[in-house]
Amino acid sequence: MFNIAIPTFVQILEFIGTFAFAISGIRLASAKRFDWFGAYVVGMATAVGGGTLRDIMLDVTPFWMTDSIYLICSGLALLWVILFSKFLVHLHNTFFIFDAIGLALFTVVGVQKTLDCGYPLWVAIIMGTFTGAAGGVIRDVFINEIPLIFRKEIYAMACVIGGIMFGICDLFELPRLITHILCGASVFLTRILAVKYHICLPTLSGEHDEEEKI
Amino acid sequence: MFNIAIPTFVQILEFIGTFAFAISGIRLASAKRFDWFGAYVVGMATAVGGGTLRDIMLDVTPFWMTDSIYLICSGLALLWVILFSKFLVHLHNTFFIFDAIGLALFTVVGVQKTLDCGYPLWVAIIMGTFTGAAGGVIRDVFINEIPLIFRKEIYAMACVIGGIMFGICDLFELPRLITHILCGASVFLTRILAVKYHICLPTLSGEHDEEEKI
Amino acid sequence: MFNIAIPTFVQILEFIGTFAFAISGIRLASAKRFDWFGAYVVGMATAVGGGTLRDIMLDVTPFWMTDSIYLICSGLALLWVILFSKFLVHLHNTFFIFDAIGLALFTVVGVQKTLDCGYPLWVAIIMGTFTGAAGGVIRDVFINEIPLIFRKEIYAMACVIGGIMFGICDLFELPRLITHILCGASVFLTRILAVKYHICLPTLSGEHDEEEKI
Repeated sequence: MFNIAIPTFVQILEFIGTFAFAISGIRLASAKRFDWFGAYVVGMATAVGGGTLRDIMLDVTPFWMTDSIYLICSGLALLWVILFSKFLVHLHNTFFIFDAIGLALFTVVGVQKTLDCGYPLWVAIIMGTFTGAAGGVIRDVFINEIPLIFRKEIYAMACVIGGIMFGICDLFELPRLITHILCGASVFLTRILAVKYHICLPTLSGEHDEEEKI
Repeated sequence: MFNIAIPTFVQILEFIGTFAFAISGIRLASAKRFDWFGAYVVGMATAVGGGTLRDIMLDVTPFWMTDSIYLICSGLALLWVILFSKFLVHLHNTFFIFDAIGLALFTVVGVQKTLDCGYPLWVAIIMGTFTGAAGGVIRDVFINEIPLIFRKEIYAMACVIGGIMFGICDLFELPRLITHILCGASVFLTRILAVKYHICLPTLSGEHDEEEKI
Repeated sequence: MFNIAIPTFVQILEFIGTFAFAISGIRLASAKRFDWFGAYVVGMATAVGGGTLRDIMLDVTPFWMTDSIYLICSGLALLWVILFSKFLVHLHNTFFIFDAIGLALFTVVGVQKTLDCGYPLWVAIIMGTFTGAAGGVIRDVFINEIPLIFRKEIYAMACVIGGIMFGICDLFELPRLITHILCGASVFLTRILAVKYHICLPTLSGEHDEEEKI
């Protein structure tokens, strides 16, 4: 599925991203007292859900159905949480960095794959954002919480910014590898800075009109 | 995507419908204190979610991926809510009418598109109902509420009635334009009358057996 | 859609399974005071939701769009609940057996269909599990509850065990019919025994870290 320049390095990054996403799903599931199977499903859905939605809309085979590494990676994440859950708290910052790496890489993959399918940039930006952020939304629907990315520090917007950076690089006809690095770096830095400085998007002033739902 | 007789008029109606659907999603998201991005996503999902599900099941490219007008329309809806949220309450009836127009038009589009793909009428009625009503279900899942259309005044049933009207018109081999108008009018009138006279479908008598879930 | 040896017997089993799944959705919807339409939609989604997701991922037409029997079956389930809801409590064990039959049969169908599409066994096991268990997840999302199958007695794991049995039978090159029966029986027995002896998967020890969501 990759048209990225250095496959092995990217594959390592992708494994780290998948692992971090799966850990995030498994930990939240465990806080809701899911059993091992439930936790695994939520972890897997967090890791591959966004890319699956993307592939369904692009009408290609969902990527995890052609390579069992994502299944195995989610399984290792479950094993990790089962064995080391006590130490996970101390690794909070590490996982935050891993998650940001995953977000960046998934965005690059999503944008590139959509462009490869012949869609214009604006579709690719949406699909990149889907790839990076939709897994977290599916996770939150499963654990019956309001999706966090709709309310907290900039998350999905980082994917959008990365997608725009991809488009700018394309305008200047930069080599693909440079484009990928700049796109990923934009996502990663936006996310890191947003959390460090608690940068949030403005909230709409509620009208207290829940009754008025149509 | 349209095989409807007067493109420009229909496009105006469709824009109004998309706008009204997006407004409904954005307002509910704002009541839950979503940020701008989250509100935009919910608005967009409300407006295009039903048609996207339909297109995925029909195995065609989701309609909003071929025309950026839906993205822009949802963006304008967000801008509108940000700028004029104080005045929205007074426009409640206007938006109710707009929403009913959207419901009617989306149903016609969904039924026609499914028939064009070669499916029988009963599939087309389901797909018309999906197109009209599923966006609201996705919206309610995102904001973590029980989907309103499953409990309140007749909403999705209006789409079903419109679809049946479409079939009756087809039986009499009426011209396509007349069929579309009668189908849309059935949906619109059913919805308006249902709200005006608080017509609800019967509720099942709960067995108080939530514990008995399998 | 079936490549199973004795069509008529399987069709009867499938009707029973669909009916039982739809009843489970309709009863839970009625406990939440959904109207008839909402209950029908939840029942239908419980019955066909898993297979629909499977077919979308396999990129084939969702099975219920080619045969209206599933629609009719869900309608009969609704009628049944409306007419006989008072007696349903006494039929609790009957419906539990029916549900286990549905789970077993849907798993066999899902695994076989995925293999027919040329995917390897591990994808087929996942798709069999989807077919059997995802409908219940969609049901629980609609009624705004945490999906029960992630927390209670072994349910989806029964599908996985059935899928593995399918693979073992294939290794020994058993006739298709025997493979189907052994696969289905594994699912059925696992499910029955799990509920009879309250066999649950272990739960992850929650870290009380909901605040730490990334």
